[in-house]
Amino acid sequence: MDSGRFGTDVYARRLQSAADAAAAAGLAGLVITPGYDLRYLLGSRAQTFERLTALVLPASGDPTVVVPRLELASLRESAVPELGLAVRDWVDGENPYRLVADVLGGGPDSNPGSLRSCPPIKTAVTDAMPALHLLPLADVLGAVPILATDVLRRLRMVKDAAEIDALRKAGAAIDRVHARVPEFLAPGRTEADVAADIAEAIVAEGHSEVAFIIVGSGPNGADPHHECSDRELREGDVVVVDIGGPYEPGYNSDSTRTYSIGEPSPEVSRQYAVLQQAQRAAVAAVRPGVTAEQVDAAARDVLAAEGLAEVFVHRTGHGIGLSVHEEPYIVAGNDLPLESGMAFSVEPGIYFPGQWGARIEDIVVVTEDGALSVNNQPHELVVVPVA
Amino acid sequence: MDSGRFGTDVYARRLQSAADAAAAAGLAGLVITPGYDLRYLLGSRAQTFERLTALVLPASGDPTVVVPRLELASLRESAVPELGLAVRDWVDGENPYRLVADVLGGGPDSNPGSLRSCPPIKTAVTDAMPALHLLPLADVLGAVPILATDVLRRLRMVKDAAEIDALRKAGAAIDRVHARVPEFLAPGRTEADVAADIAEAIVAEGHSEVAFIIVGSGPNGADPHHECSDRELREGDVVVVDIGGPYEPGYNSDSTRTYSIGEPSPEVSRQYAVLQQAQRAAVAAVRPGVTAEQVDAAARDVLAAEGLAEVFVHRTGHGIGLSVHEEPYIVAGNDLPLESGMAFSVEPGIYFPGQWGARIEDIVVVTEDGALSVNNQPHELVVVPVA
Repeated sequence: MDSGRFGTDVYARRLQSAADAAAAAGLAGLVITPGYDLRYLLGSRAQTFERLTALVLPASGDPTVVVPRLELASLRESAVPELGLAVRDWVDGENPYRLVADVLGGGPDSNPGSLRSCPPIKTAVTDAMPALHLLPLADVLGAVPILATDVLRRLRMVKDAAEIDALRKAGAAIDRVHARVPEFLAPGRTEADVAADIAEAIVAEGHSEVAFIIVGSGPNGADPHHECSDRELREGDVVVVDIGGPYEPGYNSDSTRTYSIGEPSPEVSRQYAVLQQAQRAAVAAVRPGVTAEQVDAAARDVLAAEGLAEVFVHRTGHGIGLSVHEEPYIVAGNDLPLESGMAFSVEPGIYFPGQWGARIEDIVVVTEDGALSVNNQPHELVVVPVA
Repeated sequence: MDSGRFGTDVYARRLQSAADAAAAAGLAGLVITPGYDLRYLLGSRAQTFERLTALVLPASGDPTVVVPRLELASLRESAVPELGLAVRDWVDGENPYRLVADVLGGGPDSNPGSLRSCPPIKTAVTDAMPALHLLPLADVLGAVPILATDVLRRLRMVKDAAEIDALRKAGAAIDRVHARVPEFLAPGRTEADVAADIAEAIVAEGHSEVAFIIVGSGPNGADPHHECSDRELREGDVVVVDIGGPYEPGYNSDSTRTYSIGEPSPEVSRQYAVLQQAQRAAVAAVRPGVTAEQVDAAARDVLAAEGLAEVFVHRTGHGIGLSVHEEPYIVAGNDLPLESGMAFSVEPGIYFPGQWGARIEDIVVVTEDGALSVNNQPHELVVVPVA
């Protein structure tokens, strides 16, 4: 496990920006239970249990952490102590949702004598908050919260220099792993054998852990969410290798390359070339002001022109940062205009059920000059010679 | 990882009971995203991602699984294929919440021409459903769901014979681990060394994996949620060992015993004896009709009578099953009457900050004759001789 976080000033700035965003949205504040938003705002890796732990961030006023007394230790490694945040611990039998409402200025039942005289408290809650906490909280607040993503979206999506640096380091590390993948691929080895070697390489190249490993050989490559199996590689296989993990202080890598065991058939070569062109077109489309769906369309149009629209069965990409999948999603229907600092995958794929599949994936960061790719391994189908 | 589940008939019965409970609660149905409820109802270990996977269980009508086409494979090992459940897969760009509403009979915007003519759809959602899915679902349904726990509580809490058998097997396995713990404890070894040995033993004794290991020695024993550290054991340490994990087909063990490295001081012996009496009193209080809080009080009263009320800082217990912590919670304020088949921990503890702590924990099942303990290691402070 990686254990690092940024300096305290980073979290102070993020908290202020988040409070400002809550104020601008006309909310009393944000309620953030454990998950990526809490990690973003406090560097905390606390986990969610049945007892409520939450950062309560009023639009104006002091941020307060509500935490079960038993789990106070979970705050130690976060920025909470250095920031000197108020901590309101609670014990079994207390109503922690009531404490949240108190920090935000009291809920409809804060004054039992005049039950309906207090207005509902408008808040936003983190995407990760489970119903177990969200529904009783909504009850106490007298209003259904909105998603914090609607408030924090821009803050989380637009990466600052330190975050981009972290993504570039993660990207370089996974590039080094892909550079080693050909030595793991040989006829007779299973996908699981290859995955085990890749897992070691992911950590050896500096990741703090493995987040995911897909080794999809032959027909398994046609399932975009295949992980790995006991299928043995054989000459002529096309192999999709999609791998990544978090890199100190927790930003993720995610890159896919496609390999061929021995020379590919002319048909595979021809269709792979179209895929490569589609991926290049999508990356070339990236710049501030272009919408997420336009990037998706750039890849899709190239494939459609060659009759491959039907075999590209997923969106073109997803945002990445502390979470492997986050906003912005590069998908039809998402008319979000890209901004400098946004980071996401560009990963079109082609899938022929029962036969083979291929995918090319880089993480790119939007800059004023277009896409900056954090992955820089060649995009060609990598031919692994067979002895 | 364990991969077993019960026979298909078990899930058919559970689905019917859950639908009946939804009908009795006046709901259109239940919406269950991945988590323990989904595992209980379908034997599914699917995980939650940003794309919605959900069992939609109408109060009357056919259960339907809504699942991203990319994640169809996640249903393979569940009871879904054998039960022949309807599966409605969806692709990026579709609105999966709309599909949920369709299964439940259409939401307020099912007929765009008459936006307000459809009544809101009353549902209950699983505790684990993240806000990311719950809030857009509530929007489409036109009503804020309630917690499925309020509907499924009794079904999940009252274990059937097969579940009790599973809990007993898990209990016997963790008893075998505790029987081996003294051989792992010796001055100079760290808590982490001991935890590593225990982890091996947990799996060797038949658990499918380790869920948690607490080795709290000396002052660390005074923190009920301490896990383990590099602290070296020394003569005179009192050591709290709280361990457990899932056992095929996924029901958990959870048992705590307290150990003394060499002979304990008279003070430790005296206070431990009170704790032992408190734990015995709570177990003796268990029978149908007694409330959860009465069991809590039974332990607390014994400790209070000896001036130890202040050092018992947590509830007396928690329900257990597929999840390590679930209802019923044995805590002040919970006036739930116990019923035959309920299973929970009885685990009072005493904690002296900076000095030492002790806890005794068994899982018990409520029977007509009182508590049946699935853990049967001796309750005495286990003295580990020092060479």
